[in-house]
Amino acid sequence: MDSLLSQIYADVLPLVGQGKVADYIPALSKVEANQFGIAICSNDGEIFSIGDADVPFSIQSISKVFNLVLAMEYYGDAIWEKVGREPSGLPFNSMAQLEYEQGIPRNPFINAGALVISDMNQSKFATPNIAVREFVKKLSGNPSIQIDRIVADSEYDHRSRNAAMAYLMKSFNNFDNEVEKVLRNYFCNCALTMSCVDLAKSINFLANKGYSQLMDTQVLTPNETRQVNALMATSGLYDEAGSFAFRVGLPGKSGVGGGIIAIVPGRFSVCVWSPALNSVGNSLAGAAALESMTKHIGWSVY
Amino acid sequence: MDSLLSQIYADVLPLVGQGKVADYIPALSKVEANQFGIAICSNDGEIFSIGDADVPFSIQSISKVFNLVLAMEYYGDAIWEKVGREPSGLPFNSMAQLEYEQGIPRNPFINAGALVISDMNQSKFATPNIAVREFVKKLSGNPSIQIDRIVADSEYDHRSRNAAMAYLMKSFNNFDNEVEKVLRNYFCNCALTMSCVDLAKSINFLANKGYSQLMDTQVLTPNETRQVNALMATSGLYDEAGSFAFRVGLPGKSGVGGGIIAIVPGRFSVCVWSPALNSVGNSLAGAAALESMTKHIGWSVY
Amino acid sequence: MDSLLSQIYADVLPLVGQGKVADYIPALSKVEANQFGIAICSNDGEIFSIGDADVPFSIQSISKVFNLVLAMEYYGDAIWEKVGREPSGLPFNSMAQLEYEQGIPRNPFINAGALVISDMNQSKFATPNIAVREFVKKLSGNPSIQIDRIVADSEYDHRSRNAAMAYLMKSFNNFDNEVEKVLRNYFCNCALTMSCVDLAKSINFLANKGYSQLMDTQVLTPNETRQVNALMATSGLYDEAGSFAFRVGLPGKSGVGGGIIAIVPGRFSVCVWSPALNSVGNSLAGAAALESMTKHIGWSVY
Amino acid sequence: MDSLLSQIYADVLPLVGQGKVADYIPALSKVEANQFGIAICSNDGEIFSIGDADVPFSIQSISKVFNLVLAMEYYGDAIWEKVGREPSGLPFNSMAQLEYEQGIPRNPFINAGALVISDMNQSKFATPNIAVREFVKKLSGNPSIQIDRIVADSEYDHRSRNAAMAYLMKSFNNFDNEVEKVLRNYFCNCALTMSCVDLAKSINFLANKGYSQLMDTQVLTPNETRQVNALMATSGLYDEAGSFAFRVGLPGKSGVGGGIIAIVPGRFSVCVWSPALNSVGNSLAGAAALESMTKHIGWSVY
Repeated sequence: MDSLLSQIYADVLPLVGQGKVADYIPALSKVEANQFGIAICSNDGEIFSIGDADVPFSIQSISKVFNLVLAMEYYGDAIWEKVGREPSGLPFNSMAQLEYEQGIPRNPFINAGALVISDMNQSKFATPNIAVREFVKKLSGNPSIQIDRIVADSEYDHRSRNAAMAYLMKSFNNFDNEVEKVLRNYFCNCALTMSCVDLAKSINFLANKGYSQLMDTQVLTPNETRQVNALMATSGLYDEAGSFAFRVGLPGKSGVGGGIIAIVPGRFSVCVWSPALNSVGNSLAGAAALESMTKHIGWSVY
Repeated sequence: MDSLLSQIYADVLPLVGQGKVADYIPALSKVEANQFGIAICSNDGEIFSIGDADVPFSIQSISKVFNLVLAMEYYGDAIWEKVGREPSGLPFNSMAQLEYEQGIPRNPFINAGALVISDMNQSKFATPNIAVREFVKKLSGNPSIQIDRIVADSEYDHRSRNAAMAYLMKSFNNFDNEVEKVLRNYFCNCALTMSCVDLAKSINFLANKGYSQLMDTQVLTPNETRQVNALMATSGLYDEAGSFAFRVGLPGKSGVGGGIIAIVPGRFSVCVWSPALNSVGNSLAGAAALESMTKHIGWSVY
Repeated sequence: MDSLLSQIYADVLPLVGQGKVADYIPALSKVEANQFGIAICSNDGEIFSIGDADVPFSIQSISKVFNLVLAMEYYGDAIWEKVGREPSGLPFNSMAQLEYEQGIPRNPFINAGALVISDMNQSKFATPNIAVREFVKKLSGNPSIQIDRIVADSEYDHRSRNAAMAYLMKSFNNFDNEVEKVLRNYFCNCALTMSCVDLAKSINFLANKGYSQLMDTQVLTPNETRQVNALMATSGLYDEAGSFAFRVGLPGKSGVGGGIIAIVPGRFSVCVWSPALNSVGNSLAGAAALESMTKHIGWSVY
Repeated sequence: MDSLLSQIYADVLPLVGQGKVADYIPALSKVEANQFGIAICSNDGEIFSIGDADVPFSIQSISKVFNLVLAMEYYGDAIWEKVGREPSGLPFNSMAQLEYEQGIPRNPFINAGALVISDMNQSKFATPNIAVREFVKKLSGNPSIQIDRIVADSEYDHRSRNAAMAYLMKSFNNFDNEVEKVLRNYFCNCALTMSCVDLAKSINFLANKGYSQLMDTQVLTPNETRQVNALMATSGLYDEAGSFAFRVGLPGKSGVGGGIIAIVPGRFSVCVWSPALNSVGNSLAGAAALESMTKHIGWSVY
């Protein structure tokens, strides 16, 4: 594993810093581009890492996975009456599609879908952002994980696009709570600050049939675990999901903070991070690292 | 394996005949709905089957896989300058998306994408429909596979929608040959008549890192094989690809003739057939059979 | 004129009550469908009317005309940097078009356009809804015109769709003020309660080269007047503007309260009202009355 | 009138040659940009002209008016079952809208609508392009009007986009004849070569309640005439119809050859020509000339 990480590191180093750090909110734009880390968490609990794998970063859309898993525990299949399971074929914040499909978002990993999931969690938890934070603390075994309030507030100040989506869904009766309240909680989830090691640990249950070693708990059933992985495989990388499947071939989820998580079912979970993004908003060096990884192990899920 | 097939058969029997046989051309609408078959071809060459697994049927869009594999052999990565690799998020014959994306179809498994691949094969082969037919004869080891000319002619007579897509791509300079000629060949490929057993054999190389036992040939490299499987996994079932990944979790490709092929990488290939379709055009009992299969084996790629 | 009105009345009577009273908010749905009135205000100030021409009704989108005229006085051509002048070719509340055209609404008479105009007025007036109310009081010479607060509040409670549009425009930097505040004022304008006679008087300046007799003021220049009429002619009746031009041939503006105003340039202004609407949201009997009118006078602007 | 034309000429001269001559087919791209002409035909038959008013040019989409008038004579209101009467709000050759509205084009002046009208004329006339040519010969009193076969053939060679639209409508059963045959005739109509004087004379009946002095015939009823003018007013200038109404305020129809016809109902017809086009495909100097004209006469239909 350590030599695999060294090979990946060597492959990817020339790409680190290429691309563009997310700049739609000031708080994110200040992150130093020249950073790169990977962490692997094997199903027997070992951690392997290289580079900036312990530097906390803004997990952003990776939080959609935790949000979904939390909702699945409470709602089960009822989720799929309010959110679809199909790739969107359009940018992650498309209004046209949401209008055409009458307020039912295509999947839980585009923004509209994540907002519906947040709305469902809002109906279950007094303070959903605390619930999600406590959940990832337990999953990662790291009690010091924080929400970056400056990031969360800044995202709220730039909420227009997400507010438009939430109100559109509300107009189709697919959104129950107050828009502003749900957005506040949603942005807090996005503003969770975690390292590659934290994330690799947190998601290991998805590589391990739903069982979390750290929590010694079955977080999801094996079948639900396959479902979450299937959703990540078809819809986890915005409008690049197909190309990611083609190049990398693993279920994964990216965030505009530069993180990407991926699952090697039955073996290990992985998290890469490098803040500079490609044109569709995925970590440029991060995606390349995962491509290098599957090339070196000569294996993908397909 | 035989007991697996019996279990699936029992699970699915109540669904056989539910749905609606494709009726956009008269030749297809006459097929008896109450038929169902499965064939499995293991990577060591054994065949297992049940039901109407030897009855030949119109493979329709399953031919897009053979068409693509043939083109990959000649064009390699140049294919992806003319066709995308992303799920479409829209019906298989959407014009709006094709217009918006300036004549570059989203992937090779929607009609527009398959037409571009056919156009590429037209530039390489004197009679591409014969080339494809000979290819599947070799892959399946069945020299008697035929093109149903009545079906092919009937599809040509109802070509308007496909002609519209081809001309639209031509207007964006993404289509080189004469539209009518390419359509003729394309419809001949769709009109190939094969059984579940033929198809399971023909695609076994996709479960076997690109190696065909029957032909004793490396049809594709292992990496290309994973690429084709990834494309099937994200885009193989029209606008139901995500839901198929969620329920079944295998790379697959369907056709309106009622066939669905699927790949269990490293182990076996499978073909199910039942002519009655669900609302998005996939075999209703066929998809249920594959879902039953992954439930019984407790495994999917995810 | 009186005999013209009698003829129209006879023509239209069988249609009164056909269609469906607006029911998206409770306050509007209670209006008795079987009402019908017309008032004509000639350029020399005479009023002719028949039926329920003195019954006040909710003017709804007709207020968009007053809103626009007010903004034109302050902003002049700067308006057209934020709003287009083209018919929309889509329903009045389309999000897809607004997204595609990056937050610039097609014209000031679809909802998104009227919201931008309201946003501009918000930047000029402390309480824009009072400014518009005072404006129509002067234009109509009726100091008792009121805003129906029950209607305004009910519309605010059902604001999701309009809020989604406003936030979407805000995300494209085409909306300056707080969304909720602008919506409040916008709904107050829609909730103005006026009769056919009030409205025919209020808009007479549009038939009279911009000169209001009642106010003895040039409200708009002759050129601006032609511009407002041109906008009404191409975009005044939602997605039925072309058909209204074809059948009626006069600049006009409708509201879901069942009112339609129309202009016979150089001669007179007219307002019809009948609450039951056709499928695109225009007064069924009202549009028929205007069609009857242009047939009887054998004249349209075309 | 002569002094009006001189004023317009002076206003517009600085703009002549600005913009870009149509270059989608070689035959049109060779036209010298620096040309400009206007001709007015008054309702009492007098002709006034200035500049290159006698130079024949390719009338292109202006032919859609003649095509429609011919079809109206044979089909009456049945036309409107196959074509709408609404502005499109999208470019003249949009496929997305045509798909969304199931093969019913928005109006007879976008390409798809004109193709449906051509298809209807194909069902009535042995050689529709000859029928249209003979019609304009009579309307203009000029027996030497020709179809430019080089232009017509070149357009046919570049037919892909129009073929795509025709086939799409055929797939919705809104197109009866063979696509290629209809396109041939359609392009012949577009390739008619006429001067400003020819066109001003030909369309004078639209300014004269349907009565053609030259033919001494009632070509259309007064009501039908108003209908054609209404359609031109709302849909005659592609995706600039609203802006043209706003700036000019007359029913008009443009062509990519650089011609624009316009109607001053009850008074006169006018044709301007200047080959260089603005970004949406209308003659830049031509539109400016008509704007100058309505400014000088201080009158528009609105």
